[in-house]
Amino acid sequence: MAAAKGYAATDATRPLGPFSFERREPNADDVVISVKYCGVCHSDIHQARNEWGNAKFPMVPGHEVAGIVTAVGANVTRFKPGDRAGVGCFVNSCTTCASRDVDLEQYLPGLIQTYNDVEADGRTPTYGGYSDAIVVKEGYVLAFPDNLPLDAAAPLLCAGITLYSPLRHWNAGPGKQVAIVGMGGLGHMGVKLGHAMGAEITVLSQTLSKRDDGIKLGADHYYATGDPQTFTALAGKFDLIICTVGSVIDWNAYLNLLKIDGTMVLVGVPEHPVPVHAFSVIGGRRSLAGSGIGSIKETQEMLDFCGKHDIVAEIEKIDIKDINTAYERILKSDVRYRFVIDMTTL
Amino acid sequence: MAAAKGYAATDATRPLGPFSFERREPNADDVVISVKYCGVCHSDIHQARNEWGNAKFPMVPGHEVAGIVTAVGANVTRFKPGDRAGVGCFVNSCTTCASRDVDLEQYLPGLIQTYNDVEADGRTPTYGGYSDAIVVKEGYVLAFPDNLPLDAAAPLLCAGITLYSPLRHWNAGPGKQVAIVGMGGLGHMGVKLGHAMGAEITVLSQTLSKRDDGIKLGADHYYATGDPQTFTALAGKFDLIICTVGSVIDWNAYLNLLKIDGTMVLVGVPEHPVPVHAFSVIGGRRSLAGSGIGSIKETQEMLDFCGKHDIVAEIEKIDIKDINTAYERILKSDVRYRFVIDMTTL
Repeated sequence: MAAAKGYAATDATRPLGPFSFERREPNADDVVISVKYCGVCHSDIHQARNEWGNAKFPMVPGHEVAGIVTAVGANVTRFKPGDRAGVGCFVNSCTTCASRDVDLEQYLPGLIQTYNDVEADGRTPTYGGYSDAIVVKEGYVLAFPDNLPLDAAAPLLCAGITLYSPLRHWNAGPGKQVAIVGMGGLGHMGVKLGHAMGAEITVLSQTLSKRDDGIKLGADHYYATGDPQTFTALAGKFDLIICTVGSVIDWNAYLNLLKIDGTMVLVGVPEHPVPVHAFSVIGGRRSLAGSGIGSIKETQEMLDFCGKHDIVAEIEKIDIKDINTAYERILKSDVRYRFVIDMTTL
Repeated sequence: MAAAKGYAATDATRPLGPFSFERREPNADDVVISVKYCGVCHSDIHQARNEWGNAKFPMVPGHEVAGIVTAVGANVTRFKPGDRAGVGCFVNSCTTCASRDVDLEQYLPGLIQTYNDVEADGRTPTYGGYSDAIVVKEGYVLAFPDNLPLDAAAPLLCAGITLYSPLRHWNAGPGKQVAIVGMGGLGHMGVKLGHAMGAEITVLSQTLSKRDDGIKLGADHYYATGDPQTFTALAGKFDLIICTVGSVIDWNAYLNLLKIDGTMVLVGVPEHPVPVHAFSVIGGRRSLAGSGIGSIKETQEMLDFCGKHDIVAEIEKIDIKDINTAYERILKSDVRYRFVIDMTTL
């Protein structure tokens, strides 16, 4: 066991604070990573505050982890000390399946999340990236393309793949009209990725306050959803809508913006169910779908795509001691567009 | 103008009764049909009682119309007097489009419904099949295969196509697990059609009271949704679920029965919106979709498929004077499985 330190939530109501714990000794197939940066995801807040009802305390959040390899087990072939390496939302998969499903592992039982979960032994808690080091099986470690800076690339591991996967699955590309609902940590990645795939991108945001950023990042059009005219002007326009909003909005109004056979994909998770009228999908044979992160294989594909197109997140770097303030600012949408913890401040 | 008679609703609260009106003189592209049978669809009740809020009175319902051609206009080529002919849910389409979209016309503006609508002139009301005759443009008249009896084939024109279209669109066939939710007028057609397409069919009905019928009509499995065990036993089983239920049920519970990438298609329309949780579709990248009837081209394809596989509806024939009693029985699910009006009783 190796002594580790980090920041943890000790219960659902108190701010995060310094926490000492132990990381396991690396097995033959493990990679030890010195964490340099960790992105701050809205789901870190949901989990730390037990808003999804399954919190395990103490909890060290963080699943957008970027760092440098410091040691590898005897069987590790793809990484060596000194390499840049990343860890995303999960650190094992298909632990209850006969074999690993490298394409759909994120949807299968036996997924082990990077934090707020337990290892395959059923006992050892997983602790995330708000810490100085992490030990992860090689098969769940990602490689960053050389041209991407570690700090701004860290958020690709959740925000990036969360948008990349549905954009690919529903064929965003040339000739396709794609709307991104919400211009936050997830949404701004959707703009960059969808644009790089060749789709025509429309941002639907509450106000026009981030319009200039949206256009700069690759959006072709930008509309305020606070203006009812938007829903008239854009009726029937989109092949694909990706909704990143984590609060309750009227999905029926957005479904009406789809073409015949269009799909709206939820990647944001409102706390409460949203009423859907049958006519909203029967009209135009539309679909309301969902998508969650991506497999490790697809995450690596996404990183390579980002390397090729020079795509990283827009970030604000913070000290670890400011994490609780950062949470409050995220809840007010006051971040452009992703906080990343500089782990040298730990 | 030709004198016609039928049964009409004169307002949302009174029973249907005898009604005299006029049908238009046939144009060069019109077919005149002596109505022999007309199926009774649940939506006839919704419309006659103005439950969808757009009722036009007096209203002659009926969009599962089967009869014999009595006259044709000079330009009609596909029908001649004496032929068997049908009329489904609409009698014109794409009247606001540059050209007719023969594949997706049912989803486009400018569709003119068989009843409770107005003709392309913007004035003349359309009256449906609860009548002795109907005049319809040739392009919207269907031909029945010779081996199908007119009475039991009539319901194919709405109930049949409503199930056929989504089964085809979402690729029901060999190797596919398909669930049909609801064992009524729509559902029993789903069992027959899905079985003929080669899919493995499971019926999900409130109770097991219609189980024997379901198995006889082609279902491979039959479960009661009143038994909570059903939702445990069938979790993650289906590629496709078609929900024919027109009342509010918990769609989330049914979405959980889908495989990864599975789709639940709504063809029944509950009066109220149903709360959907984002996790219900994000888990397993599932879709909640909708489907509405089918194009005339696809309706003819469905009739030909039914001819080939000897498929018709299970019907109870009624006198037109019993239509109001039939409505009450439909509301109690007390029909096996479709009422068809014998129009000689008019």
